[in-house]
Amino acid sequence: MRKIWVLILSSWCVKAYSQQENLVQYVKPIIGTQRMGHVYPGATVPFGMVQLSPDTDTLSYEMDGKYNKDMYKYCAGYQYDDKTIVGFSHTHFSGTGHSDLGDFLVMPTVGELKLNPGTADNPETGFRSPFTHDNETVEAGYYKVKLDKYNIQAELTATTRVGIHQYTFPQSDNAHIILDLMYGIYNYDDKNVWTFVRVENDTLVTGYRQTSGWGRTRTVYFAMSFSKPFIEYGNKNYSRKQVYRGFWGKFDQSKNFPEIAARQIRMYFNFKTSEGEKIKVKMALSSVSTDGALLNLRTEAPGWDFDQYKTNAQAAWQKELDKIEIKTTSEDEKENFYTSMYHAFISPTTYMDVDGSYKGLDQNIHKAEGFTNYTTFSLWDTYRALHPLFNVIQPKRNADMINSMLAHYNQSVQHMLPVWSHYANENWCMSGYHSVTVIADAIVKGNISFDANKALDACIATSKHRNFDGLGYYMDMGYIPADKNGTSVSTTLEYAFDDWAIAQAAKKLRRQDVYDDYIKRSQNYKNVYDASIGFMRPRLSDGTFRQNFDVLSTNDQGFIEGNAWNFSLFVPQDPASLIEMMGGKKQFVKHLDSLFTMELPDKYFAETEDITRDGIIGNYVHGNEPSHHVAYLYNWTDQPWKTQERVRMILPKMYAAKPDGLGGNDDCGQMSAWYIFTTLGFYPFAPGSDQYSLGSPAIDGATLHLENGKTFVVEVINQGDKNVYLQKVLLNGQPVNRNYITHEEIMNGGKISFYMSAKHK
Amino acid sequence: MRKIWVLILSSWCVKAYSQQENLVQYVKPIIGTQRMGHVYPGATVPFGMVQLSPDTDTLSYEMDGKYNKDMYKYCAGYQYDDKTIVGFSHTHFSGTGHSDLGDFLVMPTVGELKLNPGTADNPETGFRSPFTHDNETVEAGYYKVKLDKYNIQAELTATTRVGIHQYTFPQSDNAHIILDLMYGIYNYDDKNVWTFVRVENDTLVTGYRQTSGWGRTRTVYFAMSFSKPFIEYGNKNYSRKQVYRGFWGKFDQSKNFPEIAARQIRMYFNFKTSEGEKIKVKMALSSVSTDGALLNLRTEAPGWDFDQYKTNAQAAWQKELDKIEIKTTSEDEKENFYTSMYHAFISPTTYMDVDGSYKGLDQNIHKAEGFTNYTTFSLWDTYRALHPLFNVIQPKRNADMINSMLAHYNQSVQHMLPVWSHYANENWCMSGYHSVTVIADAIVKGNISFDANKALDACIATSKHRNFDGLGYYMDMGYIPADKNGTSVSTTLEYAFDDWAIAQAAKKLRRQDVYDDYIKRSQNYKNVYDASIGFMRPRLSDGTFRQNFDVLSTNDQGFIEGNAWNFSLFVPQDPASLIEMMGGKKQFVKHLDSLFTMELPDKYFAETEDITRDGIIGNYVHGNEPSHHVAYLYNWTDQPWKTQERVRMILPKMYAAKPDGLGGNDDCGQMSAWYIFTTLGFYPFAPGSDQYSLGSPAIDGATLHLENGKTFVVEVINQGDKNVYLQKVLLNGQPVNRNYITHEEIMNGGKISFYMSAKHK
Repeated sequence: MRKIWVLILSSWCVKAYSQQENLVQYVKPIIGTQRMGHVYPGATVPFGMVQLSPDTDTLSYEMDGKYNKDMYKYCAGYQYDDKTIVGFSHTHFSGTGHSDLGDFLVMPTVGELKLNPGTADNPETGFRSPFTHDNETVEAGYYKVKLDKYNIQAELTATTRVGIHQYTFPQSDNAHIILDLMYGIYNYDDKNVWTFVRVENDTLVTGYRQTSGWGRTRTVYFAMSFSKPFIEYGNKNYSRKQVYRGFWGKFDQSKNFPEIAARQIRMYFNFKTSEGEKIKVKMALSSVSTDGALLNLRTEAPGWDFDQYKTNAQAAWQKELDKIEIKTTSEDEKENFYTSMYHAFISPTTYMDVDGSYKGLDQNIHKAEGFTNYTTFSLWDTYRALHPLFNVIQPKRNADMINSMLAHYNQSVQHMLPVWSHYANENWCMSGYHSVTVIADAIVKGNISFDANKALDACIATSKHRNFDGLGYYMDMGYIPADKNGTSVSTTLEYAFDDWAIAQAAKKLRRQDVYDDYIKRSQNYKNVYDASIGFMRPRLSDGTFRQNFDVLSTNDQGFIEGNAWNFSLFVPQDPASLIEMMGGKKQFVKHLDSLFTMELPDKYFAETEDITRDGIIGNYVHGNEPSHHVAYLYNWTDQPWKTQERVRMILPKMYAAKPDGLGGNDDCGQMSAWYIFTTLGFYPFAPGSDQYSLGSPAIDGATLHLENGKTFVVEVINQGDKNVYLQKVLLNGQPVNRNYITHEEIMNGGKISFYMSAKHK
Repeated sequence: MRKIWVLILSSWCVKAYSQQENLVQYVKPIIGTQRMGHVYPGATVPFGMVQLSPDTDTLSYEMDGKYNKDMYKYCAGYQYDDKTIVGFSHTHFSGTGHSDLGDFLVMPTVGELKLNPGTADNPETGFRSPFTHDNETVEAGYYKVKLDKYNIQAELTATTRVGIHQYTFPQSDNAHIILDLMYGIYNYDDKNVWTFVRVENDTLVTGYRQTSGWGRTRTVYFAMSFSKPFIEYGNKNYSRKQVYRGFWGKFDQSKNFPEIAARQIRMYFNFKTSEGEKIKVKMALSSVSTDGALLNLRTEAPGWDFDQYKTNAQAAWQKELDKIEIKTTSEDEKENFYTSMYHAFISPTTYMDVDGSYKGLDQNIHKAEGFTNYTTFSLWDTYRALHPLFNVIQPKRNADMINSMLAHYNQSVQHMLPVWSHYANENWCMSGYHSVTVIADAIVKGNISFDANKALDACIATSKHRNFDGLGYYMDMGYIPADKNGTSVSTTLEYAFDDWAIAQAAKKLRRQDVYDDYIKRSQNYKNVYDASIGFMRPRLSDGTFRQNFDVLSTNDQGFIEGNAWNFSLFVPQDPASLIEMMGGKKQFVKHLDSLFTMELPDKYFAETEDITRDGIIGNYVHGNEPSHHVAYLYNWTDQPWKTQERVRMILPKMYAAKPDGLGGNDDCGQMSAWYIFTTLGFYPFAPGSDQYSLGSPAIDGATLHLENGKTFVVEVINQGDKNVYLQKVLLNGQPVNRNYITHEEIMNGGKISFYMSAKHK
């Protein structure tokens, strides 16, 4: 078994590295770890279930009874500016603006055993250790750091479901590996619901933890294997209140007692180590059971060769990165591009055991038959460019993601497709029902390996759930009244767009009645447009517009993560009508120009969430998603060259190959997907359409290796920093006399040739 | 499917009732519900997973920060003297001295909706209702009561895994069925760990509750089906602290919201009812999943015919009661006997879904292959007479119980057989490792449908667990030092007895080395005997006996649930040596006589737990188990007639056909099994031996219908209240010139004839 396994992986590595350039070298997971990128630097494989990464603090949701604003920085557990590491935990979101996870923090130490983490200001009081970036190596699928306090070198890699640790110890009679089962991200006093641990033998520990955080009811099972037997072990129970344990006094439960259960537990395992001795730890996860975790462990990680696991993890990344080869002379550009590819291929995450089993939304165990089940659906973000990107270069996975959404729908007692879903939980985060757009986009583009009509039925059911977030009002009145809902305008706009996407799928599936119904609903954006001021505006139940209204503020103005300036442009389904409504092309260009160039007063800047100063260009907020299509709107005016100019201006401002190089939360790859498309020269302006709006390619060329075996080449002639304008575009040698190309044109393979110029047409 | 099911059950009923006397009529589940019997009056089937019974209070483990002594009365949820019913919950222990359970309290009400239970003193403040015993019908498998506050008649019955409710309502526009998911027995502030509920449609609700009470990690799943659609529903969340629910504001979660999860929840379902309208509720349980509960529901209870379920339940009881037919002219005797049979056939309880799946001790899902899996092992009590009773009249079930214990052993990370186990939990309650005696008794008696050698290996492993309750000291020193363990003497005595049982099994399996080892260990009782005072006595690590010692006290004297007077006699494995050690037969008889006749000073009475005043005869405590063999000890002296006299004196004092008719906790049927054996005239003095010590039959005769198809008849000649002495005993016509009969003699079928006399021999 093991022999075969190594051979298969080796041959795969050979293929990957012998035929292609080493692209893994350009992935810099450290990009975005400073300030608001909210990505993590640790080890994961493409779409992996395990994200094994260092955590630099343990801030709690509440401090002194109040919401702790600082905690927001720790959505990914790591902040570049921090000076200490608390440990290495196995689950992290990539780039989110809310969080959860941080399961099973492991920390190696030597010397006096300390079971509390200590504080950042005074790491000596606990087990955390100072570290420096000089002693840190951050690669795709591999992370290394020296823990200065202990002189321990920690290395991490991963398989899909197993985190692999390698700790190189100094000589010590008093070495420890701590398993902190209290640690969590977005932690609360009451977040830990239950913890259960079994020490099966002196190298194997199993158990689970159940939390109620962002995911309301979430259980993760584990199987943890040590390369060397521990000589003793124990735990400390930190539960606020111990439940009745009358007869358990028959054992000393704190030391060498193999079955522990409580709300709050930290465990330790003791070793004697020689100088330079490596102790390895494998931690397998499962959503099903400890048996499931053991199955994952034994299937994916039977051996102890750390370097081989690292090689395999990086080969898996190489395989995915190979899908787009780019030509550029800029190392920074390569790093930006392949780090974006890396970030785009982290989420959604695999959510099933090796046998296909997983815990579903109904808390029962289900089996994914014929598809890989995924979770971590940050759909308000990712429907825009990430899933469209997958339809081009990850169509198989995207179809499986849709199968996963349909499984979610089937398990949902609300009979709804996912909104923001992870680990058998619906978090109901953000607005809209953008699953329908992901599904419609795949249907329209013909990437259908699911029952398309059933999928459309699920979209329809989801979009008719009257009790959901103002939807009843929307259906009855054509808009959500501002007196009934805090994000009445943006949600109306998003529903209208999603409805248009449903209509497109219905058209493709020849369901005319559905098309008629939804194409009508898709016009609802007009109901919240106040022509007197030229902006979308909160409207009350009585039909009048709200008086008190500030078009620059994002606070309580009826929009989510955006102000009226940005969000009023959110009609990707009907830009021509929008432009007409807003005064025609000329007026509209002026309006767009103002957006990018105006000086936003400081008070408005301060209230804009999720972005750093660099995340705003004028009043254009790239760090939040509602504006991601905005730069392409010029394509519907008489000045499409301004799209070309704007996107080339946005790219270097918002993406840089340095720790603070992400202008806002990466949002599970959406920011990165925008970068990838835009860098290639085209963008899925309105998912659900088969068109990609043309921009301005930012590299010297690219080759897309498609899953259908074909190749789509992006040729860029006369590229240069100032040559941002398209002089002409040829597709397979024929002029493209429009501002878009189609999905079919890409998937058929061939070549698009961009002729660049320093002057616009 | 349904048709076949009804037919099978009907034919079974016909058989039961046409060929036999209706024995169900003699079962009075109300016996023992007053004071300390700790049995419940509600509906269950033999060894059923569901015990659906009224609960009369909701006392909490703590009141005002202190242990609430009153709560102890509510181990079974019901106290006869109470005036109100809180509702009907689905799981109850029968006769235990500790408790847990009380899952899923259902209560029908009309009028203003109240979601708190109110107080016993002032039931108007909540949903509880006054009731009277005049309006109460308590039968095997059926319970009926009128809820006076609401004029609702409540009826309960059950299948193995489903509780069936029938509520007859008055006319009301405001009728409710409350599902209280906070209620529990032995309740704590923190006992509820998590609750999850899905309203699947307007007649079906699924969910689970996870508790940490006596069972540390226990989850029960349910599927609840209503015969009539509810018109609306809702819940109130009583959790001390609500976890972060930022985005759930998209819904009103308190009303008609189908997915609720929190620590503390009460739900309600609203109806309009006409006068006399019956609403039925079926609540299926599972330890596996809500899918498992649904499977149990649909398999066992597909229809809505309440009367048929009641008929089936009582037919199931009749089938079990039929195993012993007794002859007596006393109705009270019949009620005592068949109520004892009923109580003996409640526990251990079935613990698996209809497909054999169950959650194991390791928290994984297991499947019972080829046997019925049982839980609720109150082994410190039941190894004495209940499992020996099963070896006679329930051999198949007893072997399955042993298979269940072995499955527990296989899942135990401690590698131990159960001590006090229920619902995938080891509670470690009481002392000894009496599983080994249950297994040895079955091996010695040839009731083996498990791998006997593997079972013996499990016994050996269990008895060598050095970290368990003083066992390391016992193994090294031959006794447990009093300075190391609070119950050092009684635990030493119990280990020694269990070790003897292991030796007997080893002998039967021809494993001489094991026999030699354990027969030696079985002599360890001698190491805690202080010849200078003639009692077993706490002994210190240095070998000396503890100075401070009170032979009458049960408090902190080194014994559990017994004083030195009672517990010093606990050497069932070697009574002859015990008698010799204690001064010979004559002296020993005087000693025994004193035990039964002495006047126990009040201060000692007050500290004796688990019994009512009637539970003590002199200083002989029948309400606790360590003395259950004591009356039979006279058989090893020259005055065996005193055994006959004592047992006939104990029987009517300790067992009466009235609510306070049990002298102490029934302890999962052990008290009842003592009654059954003793009433038949023989008793398993030392389980692990194949001998039954003769006493004095208390009825006019009996017929045991054995599973092997044979019949064993107990004939009693010249029975009478004063004719308590055995004049002679014949077995199949041949004189029995010894004080015992053997298991083989019973199982071969035949007849034992007791000739009674008013004068002893």
